[in-house]
Amino acid sequence: MDAVGYYNGEFAPLAELKIPALDRGVYFGDGVYEAVRVDQHRFFALDEHLDRLQNSLAFLRIPFSMSRETLKAVLQEVADRVDSAHQQLYFQVTRATAARTHSFPEGAEPNLLVFSREVPFADVNEPRKVIVLPDIRWKYCNIKTLNLIPAVLAAQTAKERGCCEAVFHRDGVVTECSSSNLLMLKGGALHTAPADEHILPGVTRGHFLMLARQMNIPVVERAFTLEQAYGADELMITSTSARGLPVREMEGRAVGGGDSALLKKLQAAYQSYADDRMASAGE
Amino acid sequence: MDAVGYYNGEFAPLAELKIPALDRGVYFGDGVYEAVRVDQHRFFALDEHLDRLQNSLAFLRIPFSMSRETLKAVLQEVADRVDSAHQQLYFQVTRATAARTHSFPEGAEPNLLVFSREVPFADVNEPRKVIVLPDIRWKYCNIKTLNLIPAVLAAQTAKERGCCEAVFHRDGVVTECSSSNLLMLKGGALHTAPADEHILPGVTRGHFLMLARQMNIPVVERAFTLEQAYGADELMITSTSARGLPVREMEGRAVGGGDSALLKKLQAAYQSYADDRMASAGE
Repeated sequence: MDAVGYYNGEFAPLAELKIPALDRGVYFGDGVYEAVRVDQHRFFALDEHLDRLQNSLAFLRIPFSMSRETLKAVLQEVADRVDSAHQQLYFQVTRATAARTHSFPEGAEPNLLVFSREVPFADVNEPRKVIVLPDIRWKYCNIKTLNLIPAVLAAQTAKERGCCEAVFHRDGVVTECSSSNLLMLKGGALHTAPADEHILPGVTRGHFLMLARQMNIPVVERAFTLEQAYGADELMITSTSARGLPVREMEGRAVGGGDSALLKKLQAAYQSYADDRMASAGE
Repeated sequence: MDAVGYYNGEFAPLAELKIPALDRGVYFGDGVYEAVRVDQHRFFALDEHLDRLQNSLAFLRIPFSMSRETLKAVLQEVADRVDSAHQQLYFQVTRATAARTHSFPEGAEPNLLVFSREVPFADVNEPRKVIVLPDIRWKYCNIKTLNLIPAVLAAQTAKERGCCEAVFHRDGVVTECSSSNLLMLKGGALHTAPADEHILPGVTRGHFLMLARQMNIPVVERAFTLEQAYGADELMITSTSARGLPVREMEGRAVGGGDSALLKKLQAAYQSYADDRMASAGE
């Protein structure tokens, strides 16, 4: 099947899957999510995603009690029902299904929605263009919630301007992109915003930092400005499906291209790391 | 029936109503909403709510093309199917049903979800307690979107502390409450935060300001601080179902009670205004 969905125990072709209108995800966005790569029907870095999900659930105080083992089995079954060898699997947990009242309903169980479909990896050689937008989001961008209107609006604006992403900034200081992290190479070091409340601690971002440290490339987790980004040797985008995409134009200005050797070295290290990990066990 | 739902042309008992998992409201909260009073099966101030909906739709660039007349007919049919004489009717418009991609899907139609159920008015005589919380929301709190996690968390915290609402502040400056506006009486004048990006322009708030002006009570639409709120003669909460509730305790400190004559005069003026409007036409 092309795209498969699951909701609270039931599987269906994704386009046919329905959920109750009173799922609090529908009217409050009261839930959290993860998106994970599935290649050859095996997960990549699933435990890192599940750890982050746990953190998001704890922040929102959603008492999702399904064991990790059971959850993995559900995710695996969804992935197995999709024919493609290159999937992105999405899953979200919402607080409950209940009459609409802001405070938490008592005694209601969280809901699990899962779907997967074919999504290829983004080409790591193609130079990318990005726009720059003010970061208008709430205070806790480190929590992966369903409240995604700012990301939606930014992605659309980027698309309309022929770009693949929007770089967010708060008063001139770069945070991240609408659905990815931004990394910068400068003077042989890898720079990126610290994993505080202003950015999502991306799993791929974390892997890049880990690999850079292993390769004795200095890693600087400190906020940098837009002006510093314009002056970067290289800018890279990372997300679950974007494994270090080179940015070559930002707001119509040429950027990066000054250290393609190091950029390619990091991309290759990542690819090798991911291949090894998938070959050894997957998950 | 107790509670009735409607989605894109179909009616159902609310608890049985289902919607597609790929409605963008489900995974992005990509939509806007309104809640309106229905008494004796007639709407109160529906056009003001529809004007605000239009503004929210325009901000999110959701091309909802249903005519106001048709929309009103749908809302009326939902209300008519609910037995209660005292309803709160909720309706939301989401951008589309489509595969999950942040940018806007092309060619997809917006979705309309409506439900209504019995909700009594809040007692305007009962003294209320509130807590105070930092306003952690995004930049455009004037837009009535489905991204409501901050309101959900605040309402729950208030409830756990035996309070009915949370007063939000940005660096000590009061904005509004989690799902209502905050008005202050001081020295015979009615104060409230200006209708800028930091607050929702409440319909009931607007009516109170209009009535105060008619009664020659000075109206000050200027942000006030928490310290000023603690020193208010009276604090009042307004929302569609809260027609000027008196606040008498904030973060455990006694507040208000210093000008109950003016408070009651405003409450009575509002009740009279609402009664007259419903008696003359409803709508």
